Amino acid sequence: MTLRIFVDIAAPEDTLQVLRDGTAGHELILSSQPAVSVLAQAVLDPRLFSADIAFGQPDPAALASASQLKWIQLSSSSITRYDNPGFRQMVAANRTTVCNSASVYSEACAEHVLAFLLAQSRLLPRSLDTRVPGGAEAWHQLRGDCVPLRGQSALVLGYGAIGKRLAEMLLPFAMDVIAFRRGARGDETVQVIGESQLGDALSRVDHVINLLPDSTDTRHFFDASRFAAMRPGAVFYNIGRGATVDQRDLLDALRSGRLKAAWLDVTDPEPLPDGHPLLALPNCFITPHVAGGHQAESKTLVRHFLANLNRYLRGEPLVDRVM
Amino acid sequence: MTLRIFVDIAAPEDTLQVLRDGTAGHELILSSQPAVSVLAQAVLDPRLFSADIAFGQPDPAALASASQLKWIQLSSSSITRYDNPGFRQMVAANRTTVCNSASVYSEACAEHVLAFLLAQSRLLPRSLDTRVPGGAEAWHQLRGDCVPLRGQSALVLGYGAIGKRLAEMLLPFAMDVIAFRRGARGDETVQVIGESQLGDALSRVDHVINLLPDSTDTRHFFDASRFAAMRPGAVFYNIGRGATVDQRDLLDALRSGRLKAAWLDVTDPEPLPDGHPLLALPNCFITPHVAGGHQAESKTLVRHFLANLNRYLRGEPLVDRVM
Repeated sequence: MTLRIFVDIAAPEDTLQVLRDGTAGHELILSSQPAVSVLAQAVLDPRLFSADIAFGQPDPAALASASQLKWIQLSSSSITRYDNPGFRQMVAANRTTVCNSASVYSEACAEHVLAFLLAQSRLLPRSLDTRVPGGAEAWHQLRGDCVPLRGQSALVLGYGAIGKRLAEMLLPFAMDVIAFRRGARGDETVQVIGESQLGDALSRVDHVINLLPDSTDTRHFFDASRFAAMRPGAVFYNIGRGATVDQRDLLDALRSGRLKAAWLDVTDPEPLPDGHPLLALPNCFITPHVAGGHQAESKTLVRHFLANLNRYLRGEPLVDRVM
Repeated sequence: MTLRIFVDIAAPEDTLQVLRDGTAGHELILSSQPAVSVLAQAVLDPRLFSADIAFGQPDPAALASASQLKWIQLSSSSITRYDNPGFRQMVAANRTTVCNSASVYSEACAEHVLAFLLAQSRLLPRSLDTRVPGGAEAWHQLRGDCVPLRGQSALVLGYGAIGKRLAEMLLPFAMDVIAFRRGARGDETVQVIGESQLGDALSRVDHVINLLPDSTDTRHFFDASRFAAMRPGAVFYNIGRGATVDQRDLLDALRSGRLKAAWLDVTDPEPLPDGHPLLALPNCFITPHVAGGHQAESKTLVRHFLANLNRYLRGEPLVDRVM
């Protein structure tokens, strides 16, 4: 069976060669207008309409006219662009399988979260920025302000591949880790709570880690009321999506001291414009949506696709299937 | 048995109260000249000469005239000030037990090392300092320069309480962890190597983590030849003591690009003076000897002493005994 495989990811030549090698025997169609990143939508190349498989970030509107597609492999972890009832209905009607690439990014994302947690515990931004001498009052203060992770508590919102991996990384710290997930599946390795227990959990934990995807359900999930529910002095982390947090309410919570600090890999908008008040806060630390990034990322992405392609050809269930 | 307990640590009143409560029934002698920090030596208070137990950083020279001491509980993890043949001979002759407080600092120190490792993996200093937009060339570069810890290798030099705890924290990353220790004891949880295998290990590992104490044996242990033995692009961490590293040779290794980066909690001298060339390097990250610091540190220190005091009174072996 020769398949027509449409690909719109941008990748260096050596990665494209891995793709060519791995799809030998099939017809590989490289889009003339590849997506500039896994966060960007690709411009339409009409050859999409004759493909059996699409890999990348194809335009959701165009996909409505691509009912012949048997499998769409998204190159991102996020499925926001495709996550709506109309799209879900369409792929269900066409019997199109949709996968994301969560596994490609989960290791790096979980490491990014733990890097944030430990940079907060050890107060790295502050301590990297001072040469205060041993014995000075400010030195005692800096040492004493460091709160070991061990024995602290964390609430992880959104318990998918990243949350699961993070929970593994936190095991040596004997932390009290709770996961918030709509609809527990029973395979979670930590205590899972639902909406009804969220307020209580927010009021107790030291670290609130937001991994929620962007959807109509999660837009501004973190607003003034959720921040007010948190334990004073809690630390907030956002490695999910910027739109799940009301930036103005986050700003207020940081300014008032309700939150001790915030560590954000995602913001709304991205990047924050010059003069945005979050940029001026000494207790707000922002990285530019790089949590999932890692060496040879596009090669890992292509290998993830090729591994799924082999499963597809053998009729096995695909990894990271989302629809 | 009423003991005379001499204490020269400086601590806040609530911590001193814990000390008073825990030593009730004994004679507590608080030095009029307590040590300003666990790194500093205390000025002599002659009441030391009548004590049964000393807790803090007593002057090693004065201890030569305090042969009545049965137990010296040092408040530091480092024993450099006391670690010489003359002192060892003296305490052996007087049958004085000497303990350090390694357990008090090992958790925070190991977290500090892991914070350094992850800040390097996730390139936190660089990513916290940019708002590069998604899809830009510099954004792809930043993401691609992040090398996940998972599967990398590390050599830990000095495998005591900190190294052991660090090895536990690294377990979820499936790293190849090797420990360098003179005289393996068989209780190590990782592969241990000695001097003869050091060159080979240095040439292979991605991360070289120096936890060595300062002694005549370890002075400038890391010099030009050791840096030259390292794999090009290795990352160097010093959470041991500044004097174990030749700062000039470290500088050269960082400038030449032999080392990708260095993360130092200790330097020589401390702090580095204005204009010191290590301060100007973009790939050298320095915290001011705070790795062992943590919230309620002096209280933990006092509790460590009191727990040992209870063991002492019951005739049990003391924790963190070093002589």
